[in-house]
Amino acid sequence: MQQIEAIINDKRFQNAIIGVILLNAVVLGLLTLQSLSPAVRTVLEWIDHACLVVFVAELVMKLLVLRGSFFRDGWNVFDFAVVAIALMPNTGALSVLRALRVLRVMRLATVIPSMRRVLNGMFAALPGGASVAGILFILYYVGAIVGTTMFRGDSPHFSDIGTTFFTLFQLMTLEGWNSIAETVMDDKPQAWAFFVVFIVFTNFTTLNLLFGIIVDAMEAAKEEEVREALAGEGVEIGEASSELRLARMEEDVKHIRTTLEAMKAQARAG
Amino acid sequence: MQQIEAIINDKRFQNAIIGVILLNAVVLGLLTLQSLSPAVRTVLEWIDHACLVVFVAELVMKLLVLRGSFFRDGWNVFDFAVVAIALMPNTGALSVLRALRVLRVMRLATVIPSMRRVLNGMFAALPGGASVAGILFILYYVGAIVGTTMFRGDSPHFSDIGTTFFTLFQLMTLEGWNSIAETVMDDKPQAWAFFVVFIVFTNFTTLNLLFGIIVDAMEAAKEEEVREALAGEGVEIGEASSELRLARMEEDVKHIRTTLEAMKAQARAG
Amino acid sequence: MQQIEAIINDKRFQNAIIGVILLNAVVLGLLTLQSLSPAVRTVLEWIDHACLVVFVAELVMKLLVLRGSFFRDGWNVFDFAVVAIALMPNTGALSVLRALRVLRVMRLATVIPSMRRVLNGMFAALPGGASVAGILFILYYVGAIVGTTMFRGDSPHFSDIGTTFFTLFQLMTLEGWNSIAETVMDDKPQAWAFFVVFIVFTNFTTLNLLFGIIVDAMEAAKEEEVREALAGEGVEIGEASSELRLARMEEDVKHIRTTLEAMKAQARAG
Amino acid sequence: MQQIEAIINDKRFQNAIIGVILLNAVVLGLLTLQSLSPAVRTVLEWIDHACLVVFVAELVMKLLVLRGSFFRDGWNVFDFAVVAIALMPNTGALSVLRALRVLRVMRLATVIPSMRRVLNGMFAALPGGASVAGILFILYYVGAIVGTTMFRGDSPHFSDIGTTFFTLFQLMTLEGWNSIAETVMDDKPQAWAFFVVFIVFTNFTTLNLLFGIIVDAMEAAKEEEVREALAGEGVEIGEASSELRLARMEEDVKHIRTTLEAMKAQARAG
Repeated sequence: MQQIEAIINDKRFQNAIIGVILLNAVVLGLLTLQSLSPAVRTVLEWIDHACLVVFVAELVMKLLVLRGSFFRDGWNVFDFAVVAIALMPNTGALSVLRALRVLRVMRLATVIPSMRRVLNGMFAALPGGASVAGILFILYYVGAIVGTTMFRGDSPHFSDIGTTFFTLFQLMTLEGWNSIAETVMDDKPQAWAFFVVFIVFTNFTTLNLLFGIIVDAMEAAKEEEVREALAGEGVEIGEASSELRLARMEEDVKHIRTTLEAMKAQARAG
Repeated sequence: MQQIEAIINDKRFQNAIIGVILLNAVVLGLLTLQSLSPAVRTVLEWIDHACLVVFVAELVMKLLVLRGSFFRDGWNVFDFAVVAIALMPNTGALSVLRALRVLRVMRLATVIPSMRRVLNGMFAALPGGASVAGILFILYYVGAIVGTTMFRGDSPHFSDIGTTFFTLFQLMTLEGWNSIAETVMDDKPQAWAFFVVFIVFTNFTTLNLLFGIIVDAMEAAKEEEVREALAGEGVEIGEASSELRLARMEEDVKHIRTTLEAMKAQARAG
Repeated sequence: MQQIEAIINDKRFQNAIIGVILLNAVVLGLLTLQSLSPAVRTVLEWIDHACLVVFVAELVMKLLVLRGSFFRDGWNVFDFAVVAIALMPNTGALSVLRALRVLRVMRLATVIPSMRRVLNGMFAALPGGASVAGILFILYYVGAIVGTTMFRGDSPHFSDIGTTFFTLFQLMTLEGWNSIAETVMDDKPQAWAFFVVFIVFTNFTTLNLLFGIIVDAMEAAKEEEVREALAGEGVEIGEASSELRLARMEEDVKHIRTTLEAMKAQARAG
Repeated sequence: MQQIEAIINDKRFQNAIIGVILLNAVVLGLLTLQSLSPAVRTVLEWIDHACLVVFVAELVMKLLVLRGSFFRDGWNVFDFAVVAIALMPNTGALSVLRALRVLRVMRLATVIPSMRRVLNGMFAALPGGASVAGILFILYYVGAIVGTTMFRGDSPHFSDIGTTFFTLFQLMTLEGWNSIAETVMDDKPQAWAFFVVFIVFTNFTTLNLLFGIIVDAMEAAKEEEVREALAGEGVEIGEASSELRLARMEEDVKHIRTTLEAMKAQARAG
């Protein structure tokens, strides 16, 4: 068991896995070409299966070593799901899963440490955006009900609530919003208010959401960097944010000034 | 009366209200489906009315407790307006109000504390953007008069000042600006200047506006967090912005250095 | 002369001017309506002329007081130009100037102090973006020459260098870039590289430019605020940027630490 | 040899080169005009060749002085490539290189110091975005394989992997994404998920990438400025980032406070 653990943690083993993922990515890319001769296609399919075998083996090794704690890491769950999808029989209704085998390529981002760090940073910043995302969803839900109820008869873009949700996404991306709006406004000229309000509010909220997540992730990355650099100097700075630490430093400085002035007065008096 | 106040402030009561809002949201969503059997539709309408009764009861309770100070909180005014709209007779000219009952779903954002905080932050940041918004409005107004006066005969998009305002919004979103511009430029080739200038200026000003509001709201949220954390440590930092506090700390540090050097010189002399 | 100066600097006089600008703005807006009766139109034109007389009077008063230094303030030059345009005979080739009289509405932004501050901040931040703007212009110039030379025969959008410049602006706004690209790619399939490269580079550079100017203006506004607040406390912090001042404070703190440790060692030794 | 070095470093020589680049830029612009008489065209071509001769001479001088270290500076490599392209015979398959001679205009950005600084800042910030760019590329690659495999038969936009890559770029720019999506959704209504997911993820990742590079470049520029200003005051602050230096200052301040309190206690005791 310890041997398996040693293999898993070996840098060379990890690089080999990265190599297999890259190989698999290239093979999956080549398989989209329609000009392939049947022989070449068979070879490529064979390599694809071989890659899958490697992934299954890697997964089994990790499962043997980590056991219960395996599923505590979200990336392991992702790897497991990706391999499980690839192992399912892709016949009948499940044939769409065949296309999803390409998700294995995404394992690249979870295996290369620097990309994994970026993804971790983004996921860690997501909860901070939950409230803004909730507001955005409410805007969409209200917009979908208002749009479906009021414009159902005026445009096929608002025929039912599912279609309206898609239309609202389209409005948010601004793509073709004017032609949708004009169709509706032919019947209901005051409908411009709905479109302008929805576009302004969702775009503002989306920008707020994206911006918040990106800035949070960037700041967390920087504080992590500072933390590591200081740990290397034997200094620990705890979990407080840089703003909080700055405010505490202010308190320290004020205190130093008062103490020093008291000492000076004392020295003069003494 | 104190009993009512106790109920209103009870966490379970507030969660129950959130539950009713969610239920109402789902019902309003289901009511947009056209395939509903009349029986189901009647039941859903009945639940919708029941939810409204709950909201009215909640509002009356709050009014009884808070009395005059009820309307001082903007969210209460919003809740009141939303319920008032729902109670109006939706016949004839007011039938559009029926669609607005969905605004009740928006109460969700005002009842869930974390979303309310985000909205409060945004509203608090709005005044800081007033000047930029004013400049944006002036750009629109000037653009609307110039566009209507000069291109009235060249394109239906500039036929009157109301239409031109809508067209300018479309130009700002960039959607279809090229086809509008080309129609006008067929008659007046120099009109490109109007379109390029308007697009560049309004997009810059809008970005400035959104960016300013978002950054302000984010910074205020952070300072609020620091303030709360420090209050928990028994330290108060007043209303000054972090930049101002930083500048004051600089002064303190400079003063400490001078004092210390004076003390050192004194010690050496003494 | 001092009397005139007193009038110009009188708050009530300035508010009266703001009122006249607003009145003029409303009148110019109403004049775009085509349903006006000739009588109303005549009255509105008359009010417009009266507003112009007020502006000329204000300008003459300022010129009398400020004399040579009048033209040193960019806003005065703007006001002068706006009034000068309005006074020109709008006949024949100059009839387009009639539409430009609406620029007087823009004086609003130069007369209301808070908007003027925002505009000053933006203009002050412009030079910082000069290099990025220069790079953007070079990208455009190179793109225009390459596009005109290579695609002249493939699409009317690249027929001559002026048209190409307009097309490139359209590409940068992303509006309809795909249909322009597809027309060209029918003849020259490799042309996708030109479009992708141009779009990526100009959008990145533009974002960089806008972002730089907005952030600079925001930071300058904040430092100005801190400077004013500290001036009220009798403290001056010079022209250094907050980053530079922070770095200097670091030096001070390091120096304090060294001095203090020397004093401690001395005290222990003494 | 030292004479040549003196010439190269002479400010007037550098300004002369800028002048020649500008002249060449104007000439290349004029050459795109089709209304030129053959005589004028001949003169312009002649000037273009003369400019090229100057560039070759400048390059040879630099090569003579710098020898091996010439190619260590990326800008020199760029200059060399640009001149090399211009010297190639532009016949037959290479005639497209004729259009690329306009790249010489880009030398302007590498010769004017302030633009060069901006470009250097951007290039220096690029590696920080490598992980995010990698994630973006994986998204594209997975999207291209999924799109080609699933929608090959539904829309010409997904006919082969190369076309799909171009289509995905179009989706990312949002231009015309709705009409592409609708064509596919006529056959496969669930395809909306692919489009919405791809658009949201790539736009978020792209924004993250651009934002990261721009902010990094801006911060590096500011630290460089502070470093130069402090170097002028005889102070050096090393290579540490401003966040790290701030955290170190916190440590210093905490240490000062502790030392000072110890001294005070000692003084009281003594």
